[in-house]
Amino acid sequence: MIATKGYAVHSSDDKLAHWDFDRREVGPKDVLIEIIFSGVCHSDIHQVRGEWGNSTYPMVPGHEIVGKIVKIGDEVTKFQVGALAGIGCMVDSCRECNNCKSGHEQFCQKGQTVFTYNSVERDGVTPTYGGYSNQIVCDEAFVVSVSDKLPLEGVAPLLCAGITTYSPLKRWKIGPEHKVAVLGLGGLGHMAVKFAAAFGAEVTMLSTSPSKEADAKRLGAHKFCNTKDAAQVKEFTSYFDFIIDTVSAPHDYDMYLNMLHTFGTMICVGIPPEPIHLNGFALLGQNRTLTGSNIGGIEETQEMLDYCAEHNIVSDVEVIKMDYINEAYERVLKSDVKYRFVIDVATI
Amino acid sequence: MIATKGYAVHSSDDKLAHWDFDRREVGPKDVLIEIIFSGVCHSDIHQVRGEWGNSTYPMVPGHEIVGKIVKIGDEVTKFQVGALAGIGCMVDSCRECNNCKSGHEQFCQKGQTVFTYNSVERDGVTPTYGGYSNQIVCDEAFVVSVSDKLPLEGVAPLLCAGITTYSPLKRWKIGPEHKVAVLGLGGLGHMAVKFAAAFGAEVTMLSTSPSKEADAKRLGAHKFCNTKDAAQVKEFTSYFDFIIDTVSAPHDYDMYLNMLHTFGTMICVGIPPEPIHLNGFALLGQNRTLTGSNIGGIEETQEMLDYCAEHNIVSDVEVIKMDYINEAYERVLKSDVKYRFVIDVATI
Repeated sequence: MIATKGYAVHSSDDKLAHWDFDRREVGPKDVLIEIIFSGVCHSDIHQVRGEWGNSTYPMVPGHEIVGKIVKIGDEVTKFQVGALAGIGCMVDSCRECNNCKSGHEQFCQKGQTVFTYNSVERDGVTPTYGGYSNQIVCDEAFVVSVSDKLPLEGVAPLLCAGITTYSPLKRWKIGPEHKVAVLGLGGLGHMAVKFAAAFGAEVTMLSTSPSKEADAKRLGAHKFCNTKDAAQVKEFTSYFDFIIDTVSAPHDYDMYLNMLHTFGTMICVGIPPEPIHLNGFALLGQNRTLTGSNIGGIEETQEMLDYCAEHNIVSDVEVIKMDYINEAYERVLKSDVKYRFVIDVATI
Repeated sequence: MIATKGYAVHSSDDKLAHWDFDRREVGPKDVLIEIIFSGVCHSDIHQVRGEWGNSTYPMVPGHEIVGKIVKIGDEVTKFQVGALAGIGCMVDSCRECNNCKSGHEQFCQKGQTVFTYNSVERDGVTPTYGGYSNQIVCDEAFVVSVSDKLPLEGVAPLLCAGITTYSPLKRWKIGPEHKVAVLGLGGLGHMAVKFAAAFGAEVTMLSTSPSKEADAKRLGAHKFCNTKDAAQVKEFTSYFDFIIDTVSAPHDYDMYLNMLHTFGTMICVGIPPEPIHLNGFALLGQNRTLTGSNIGGIEETQEMLDYCAEHNIVSDVEVIKMDYINEAYERVLKSDVKYRFVIDVATI
């Protein structure tokens, strides 16, 4: 076993604190990554606090991991020692079902998607521990290559916030002919703006905070709509081809659907825990579509990272020391971060 | 003016009864159609009874019209006297906006879609009267050609129930590689089964009535699921690529969404007046899609009729005399029709 330092909680009302634990030895197809940066995702907070009802403890959060490969197994072919590498939300799956074989490991039909933390390995018992730690062992099939062209701290959030927004933009073939709205300017929203703008779309930020207009435009948005101002909302009636909805608090779906053009599509990458209420005629009346998108597969994550390296796209981050994490969580809950905290793992 | 015989209501609590009214003279681009059959759509009942809040009276319902052209204007080029022709839900639109020009007249961006009845002409004042009448005058642009190969009474419902189900199957490119469920076996549902089977899909009927299994299979369904039987529903968990939802009464959207495979799509051609409640994770958890589809444009209606003539597809109908209409409405409300009433207009 490999002695590892991390930050963990031991119950839903615990604060994150130093915890020593063991990783498995490096197997023939494994790599050992010395973690350099680990992003802080809002879903970390939900799981740490047991808000999704599926939490097991002790829990070491973190699924936006970048670092350097320091050891490889005998059968590893994709990586060499010294290479930069990343791990996102998943570390394994059955690899045999149609979804796994077609690059959608997050939808493993055998239910064997192994998440990076708060999950168990395919043996059904061994817990997984995430990126708030100094190293991680992972099968190379679930490790992606990271370019050395980009600032590494800005790359970490691409492993979750990046792929979560990149994947639906690609699936729905969003490009220069489209008017795209991004709903909500946070970790996901700021990446959606960057990607949609990079893909050539006309991008409008939809936000309840007029103070975010300048920053939205700096990130690449062309227009801004304060959705608390009915007159501004009306201007965008039947306007957009796509809305990327990053909001996981309850909100008025009908209002946003009516901002879609005929045949327009609202893509939810955030969803509130409460039921959604819809007037079905908002869909049927203009052949509109409501859809969801859940992270992205390993191959597409690599494609996204390569795209980012080529187009100089990273997340806007605030690098923090490990012992700041509990305060950082409070700030995330107040949306007081532009736009992702990233832990400097050397400070554990 | 052209003296016309029809059946009308004069208020929301009126019964349909004989009413004489005038049609406009045949203009240069108009055709005069002697109506032979007129289908009875559930939406006729909603509008007759003022249930959509947009009813004006007197109202002559009917938007599934087939007949023979008996007169043409000087500038008519598409039709000759003696030809069979049809009119569906629309008789005019602006014809200039992008939606009209791209064949989606039902979504006229100037809001000038003129419906076949319970609507006004583009002059903003002249009421339109529908197919429960012996003749109709219409611009040739909104008239479609009807083949003489098919029994005409079975063609009438294609003008609404046919195009409403054909259009989304085409838009979503449904074919032999797909497992398709049809939810609800009525006027729309029985056409959805016929088209999905004709397009080569594996078709499953979802119904709360086990007694409908034999008929569903006669119409082309390969499988049947009694949705009141939890064990049967469970068998189809994550099974379908598409669900065509024809139900306009409240129903459990989450249950049906969970019957969709990863990336599956539920297409609503019926919508309840009440708000829809959804667990958003039913969408996001498997990248599923919920969409609506509202009739279809004129060009696609012609394409659908040509497809039906080629593949010998018609609606299953019960031909009635005009004076049976009020009783027929009561039977429609009890789903006691297989699967569309069609009025023999000669009986007015």
